[in-house]
Amino acid sequence: MDELLEKAKKVREAWDVLRNATTREKNKAIKKIAEKLDERRKEILEANRIDVEKARERGVKESLVDRLALNDKRIDEMIKACETVIGLKDPVGEVIDSWVREDGLRIARVRVPIGPIGIIYESRPNVTVETTILALKSGNTILLRGGSDALNSNKAIVSAIREALKETEIPESSVEFIENTDRSLVLEMIRLREYLSLVIPRGGYGLISFVRDNATVPVLETGVGNCHIFVDESADLKKAVPVIINAKTQRPGTCNAAEKLLVHEKIAKEFLPVIVEELRKHGVEVRGCEKTREIVPDVVPATEDDWPTEYLDLIIAIKVVKNVDEAIEHIKKYSTGHSESILTENYSNAKKFVSEIDAAAVYVNASTRFTDGGQFGFGAEIGISTQRFHARGPVGLRELTTYKFVVLGEYHVRE
Amino acid sequence: MDELLEKAKKVREAWDVLRNATTREKNKAIKKIAEKLDERRKEILEANRIDVEKARERGVKESLVDRLALNDKRIDEMIKACETVIGLKDPVGEVIDSWVREDGLRIARVRVPIGPIGIIYESRPNVTVETTILALKSGNTILLRGGSDALNSNKAIVSAIREALKETEIPESSVEFIENTDRSLVLEMIRLREYLSLVIPRGGYGLISFVRDNATVPVLETGVGNCHIFVDESADLKKAVPVIINAKTQRPGTCNAAEKLLVHEKIAKEFLPVIVEELRKHGVEVRGCEKTREIVPDVVPATEDDWPTEYLDLIIAIKVVKNVDEAIEHIKKYSTGHSESILTENYSNAKKFVSEIDAAAVYVNASTRFTDGGQFGFGAEIGISTQRFHARGPVGLRELTTYKFVVLGEYHVRE
Repeated sequence: MDELLEKAKKVREAWDVLRNATTREKNKAIKKIAEKLDERRKEILEANRIDVEKARERGVKESLVDRLALNDKRIDEMIKACETVIGLKDPVGEVIDSWVREDGLRIARVRVPIGPIGIIYESRPNVTVETTILALKSGNTILLRGGSDALNSNKAIVSAIREALKETEIPESSVEFIENTDRSLVLEMIRLREYLSLVIPRGGYGLISFVRDNATVPVLETGVGNCHIFVDESADLKKAVPVIINAKTQRPGTCNAAEKLLVHEKIAKEFLPVIVEELRKHGVEVRGCEKTREIVPDVVPATEDDWPTEYLDLIIAIKVVKNVDEAIEHIKKYSTGHSESILTENYSNAKKFVSEIDAAAVYVNASTRFTDGGQFGFGAEIGISTQRFHARGPVGLRELTTYKFVVLGEYHVRE
Repeated sequence: MDELLEKAKKVREAWDVLRNATTREKNKAIKKIAEKLDERRKEILEANRIDVEKARERGVKESLVDRLALNDKRIDEMIKACETVIGLKDPVGEVIDSWVREDGLRIARVRVPIGPIGIIYESRPNVTVETTILALKSGNTILLRGGSDALNSNKAIVSAIREALKETEIPESSVEFIENTDRSLVLEMIRLREYLSLVIPRGGYGLISFVRDNATVPVLETGVGNCHIFVDESADLKKAVPVIINAKTQRPGTCNAAEKLLVHEKIAKEFLPVIVEELRKHGVEVRGCEKTREIVPDVVPATEDDWPTEYLDLIIAIKVVKNVDEAIEHIKKYSTGHSESILTENYSNAKKFVSEIDAAAVYVNASTRFTDGGQFGFGAEIGISTQRFHARGPVGLRELTTYKFVVLGEYHVRE
């Protein structure tokens, strides 16, 4: 039997044990994982050094090499992540709602793990640890398929994880890693309905759309963020500046960073020179529509290509709009459904924006950077869903569960 | 532009209005639909007469003709369904949970409609009304693709529905019906990710598996029910009989009817003759494993083919098992994840069964027939989900929604 099928079968079998494991058993396993990562630190860093060298030999961009590279600090962060997840509330067993029928039949909707999860990811080896511990804590086994760039690092990390599990009540096969990095395997993996309950692609647009378009296993899409901030006529312009700077520059490579700024025409003359200067001070390349350029002539002309684009970089495009309605229309057209924000003191406009914008997170007077499992108080996340089905926004432990109905009777029959 | 694409686009546009409609507006529209169905009753019955005649000409089985046929009583039931749905609580806008961060940023998870829904269904024309009103009440527009058998009936019903909508605030295009019954259209429809948020196949196994395997739009699978009842050693055998009879015979053609009976070996000798006689009194064909036939020799021998089969008929297969563990093993192997029941007085066995059986509904001392939106108190249902993703068990208004995060700040920035 080939590697993929064999390991898929194993995670399915292991799930039948893990899904009923106690919180104490699961936390103990995660604690052991942290210990083993610490113990086997040298070995992991050595394996990673090989991956990094190979990547450099192949001429991989330094920014990507940086995503791949581990060091003591990054291992410490993995260990810290384990501690965080141990501290999170176990969602399994929660009674979501419960009621008693007139005839005394008691019905409860109880949270249960979703099932074996397939993760297809690209270069960052810390994803291996983060997704594993979130899956384990929520009672789900995991079939990992990492990128070829990080193969040695991932093998070393998974070896430590599985060694840790051996010393616990949690089956070692709760975590399986596919070593074959053949691309055709992904197509096979996302169709293993018999074994996997969910697949999560973590990577670029190409990977995500390939998985979405070809999977028969349900997909959790963690996606693209072309996030907008609209500065309404009534916004407190002084307070608006730090919000925009925060949303754009605090970590421009993340999906919740602002990529577009819409400005009400009535305040454009006053506000644009201020915000453009401030953005530039923070190293941001400012692009603008024609009206923007009438006010601040030296900004780069924005083209039609700018409006749908997620830069993931220190670039922002500004558009002057007539009013909240035009802002909403523009966002509806170009939004990727991630995070959208209005800055305003006008109650009706705030209410309208919140109702009409259909995104995972809609903000009034706040930076889009808050759309994050940690910031939302979920403790950790496996990604940010931009789909509507099952889970939306930050995907934490709760979002990795489903429910079943538990019905308790006294030999009840239906009339 | 072809019919499918044009209508898909229309339901998407209409959704942008419907999703923010008030409960009063939606209820008014459903009330109008009830009125028009009543007014145009003759026309609908006449259209249905043509469908029924054509079906008989083609030699369609009478049981299927019966599913297709409408009469005054069935129209009355459609009107009644409208009244029921008007009475249900609108799930849209519900704050699922909400919290305030230490810095004062307020985060709320708010229920919103899921989006335009595609329904692919077979012969029953009442599905047209039921799914439409559930979709409308939950703020979702609907693209209907009915079977060719019911084409005239469906066109007449949809015409009445759309005429009703014209007299309300709800866009007429909230309900679109594809008249082209070409089979290739289904494949095209289930890939319209740009326009549809969800597709629900309502029909036989062939349709459901085709949709599941080929869709790129998320699918809600309403499926097969190979439901089991396990009679444990400690069950109150006298009380067990009516539960089994209810589960098997009250409506044998439904997915929540019991198809298999597992009996603890210690009580088999006492219980089997009683239950077999009672089942036969109710017209049930009883099949049995070897051990069953040692006790009641004249039951039909069950073969390996029986255990995975959903009969949807007055047939039951009985298996004698050693204990609760063997019962659980058997159910795990053959369950379709719909409804499973244990009859027992033993607390530990009940607890074990509830934990280990992974089905949409798990019962202790009750008939499987309760797995139903009406019985669960949802008021109505669009089907019973046997998948794990998004919704499980009866799919009512709530299950046709998703959520978004609404975040209210005072120019908050992330630190």
